[in-house]
Amino acid sequence: MATLKDVAREAGLSVGTVSRVLNNRGYISEETRNCVQEAMKRLHYEPNEMARALSKKHSTMIGVILPSISHPYFAKVLSCLERAAHARNYELLLFCSQGKSAREEEYVRVCCSNRVAGLVLCSGGVKTGKLRNLGFPVVTFERFLNDADAGVECDNYEGGALAARELIGAGCRRLLCISGEGEVSMPADARKVGFLDVCASHTDVEVQVVLCSPEHLEDLNYYPELRAFLDASPAPDGIFAGSDVIGLQTMAELSRRGLRVPQDVKIVGYDDVNLAQMTNPQLTTIHQPVREMAEECISIIVKAANNESYPARTMFHVTLEKRGTT
Amino acid sequence: MATLKDVAREAGLSVGTVSRVLNNRGYISEETRNCVQEAMKRLHYEPNEMARALSKKHSTMIGVILPSISHPYFAKVLSCLERAAHARNYELLLFCSQGKSAREEEYVRVCCSNRVAGLVLCSGGVKTGKLRNLGFPVVTFERFLNDADAGVECDNYEGGALAARELIGAGCRRLLCISGEGEVSMPADARKVGFLDVCASHTDVEVQVVLCSPEHLEDLNYYPELRAFLDASPAPDGIFAGSDVIGLQTMAELSRRGLRVPQDVKIVGYDDVNLAQMTNPQLTTIHQPVREMAEECISIIVKAANNESYPARTMFHVTLEKRGTT
Repeated sequence: MATLKDVAREAGLSVGTVSRVLNNRGYISEETRNCVQEAMKRLHYEPNEMARALSKKHSTMIGVILPSISHPYFAKVLSCLERAAHARNYELLLFCSQGKSAREEEYVRVCCSNRVAGLVLCSGGVKTGKLRNLGFPVVTFERFLNDADAGVECDNYEGGALAARELIGAGCRRLLCISGEGEVSMPADARKVGFLDVCASHTDVEVQVVLCSPEHLEDLNYYPELRAFLDASPAPDGIFAGSDVIGLQTMAELSRRGLRVPQDVKIVGYDDVNLAQMTNPQLTTIHQPVREMAEECISIIVKAANNESYPARTMFHVTLEKRGTT
Repeated sequence: MATLKDVAREAGLSVGTVSRVLNNRGYISEETRNCVQEAMKRLHYEPNEMARALSKKHSTMIGVILPSISHPYFAKVLSCLERAAHARNYELLLFCSQGKSAREEEYVRVCCSNRVAGLVLCSGGVKTGKLRNLGFPVVTFERFLNDADAGVECDNYEGGALAARELIGAGCRRLLCISGEGEVSMPADARKVGFLDVCASHTDVEVQVVLCSPEHLEDLNYYPELRAFLDASPAPDGIFAGSDVIGLQTMAELSRRGLRVPQDVKIVGYDDVNLAQMTNPQLTTIHQPVREMAEECISIIVKAANNESYPARTMFHVTLEKRGTT
């Protein structure tokens, strides 16, 4: 592989001049620039990003830690982060923690070793104190972490409230809220709170809650909890599913029991991922502006790299996407 | 951030000794090793992977180029690649080409600049000649590329044949094959060939083919082609969908038209991604052993890094996963 020295020799110029062309530093005549560029082409020279990053202390890599990749929500988050990073000439270094804190901490160390420009943390088990003084900004995505540098989230409380108003407005009175919840407190927990607060303001509305294990982010199997509830209780007439994955599985389970959606039971999901439009009826859901949230994360890391100030916490509005299940 | 020199000073040892401990080279007493490790801990020293990679010519990063990240199939592929890479202490550098060849070529260059240990290419537009002499192995995943170093795929012909036998065995006689197909020839094209070959061996079976634009890998919207066909033709009694995403959208569209699955129309999908189990009935599909295929890709790159020989082409068997749609 050709080196800077080879290019200098080929172009008949000094290494310093070639380096100035490459880094766009100081005055360089058009002729010299062309001469260097042609020599680079002839030798198939590729600047060594590792050497460059070493001299700059930071690479153009952004670390991303997700709890799951194949979950449709995190696949969408990752897709949007990649697009936003590419638009700013950054690359993603990808890690999947499967929700294990030991893995998350290991990946934070690997990010350190690779001198990333920043880290987007969508996985929430890293212990307080482990994210300080890393030498790069940590931006959490839909996660609370007191010692992260910035956090980007959506208005989960508003989302839960919108779902309750939609179901109650459609005439539902026996409501069910199905929510994935773990030991670590997360912004998404506010979906349930917003939902229950609106229900509480209606005296003729009953509401029940089913909590699902956070492990289902990995196995995507919410059927056991759903079946246990439906076996033991009379069917609700309105269901708020904490994610579209839960919403789809709820539709499938109700259909198995001969219940029609939306005639017998209405459903509102959360996230607005692609599979919300792959069933009949299509799923009414709370649209989370994942693209804008991902762009904000990348923008914060780019601002930090340029020593510009950036917001510590950014919360995006959500909207109701009305489709066939309500 | 602490350097190797700081650690040596803190431990009261030479830089050479500390480097030997870090790289596990030569004889080092237990006492010296402990002394260095404690100094590293006290100073929060993290070995600089970029400097290490520079001296070793290769990093522990593996490039991955996908045409889409949020498509459930590619999300599963990526998830399996990440898991296999992590098990071998490699990290993934992630790129999404959105099927654009110019982007793919740009990403191959970025992989070069970052001195990746290898590249897994799941996106198929890179022109012949552009993958030679990169200094690292290129492994294609379900793509043909004459100048790649290795290719991993599943037996797509067998998958198509299995689907045809399942539908014909269940009594279907008016078959439809829906297939995503682009200008670039791909291993997946053999699904259709295997399906049609089995149909041709049955004189009482009629078969039609709908070809869908490869752009739908991005927008995931196969409804226009599906509707155009169903509007113009009598409904088939058996459908082979080239992917589970197509299979789910076919189920939804048939349901909108009042057709029951599997009573009126039977469906076989392809891939066996998580959403195949999120509907009622669940989708019968061809299981593609994505986990094993991903492990093979990573294993090839690790073998190449250790100068071991590796297979040029590896083809995995597929199996029929019988569920509720047949």
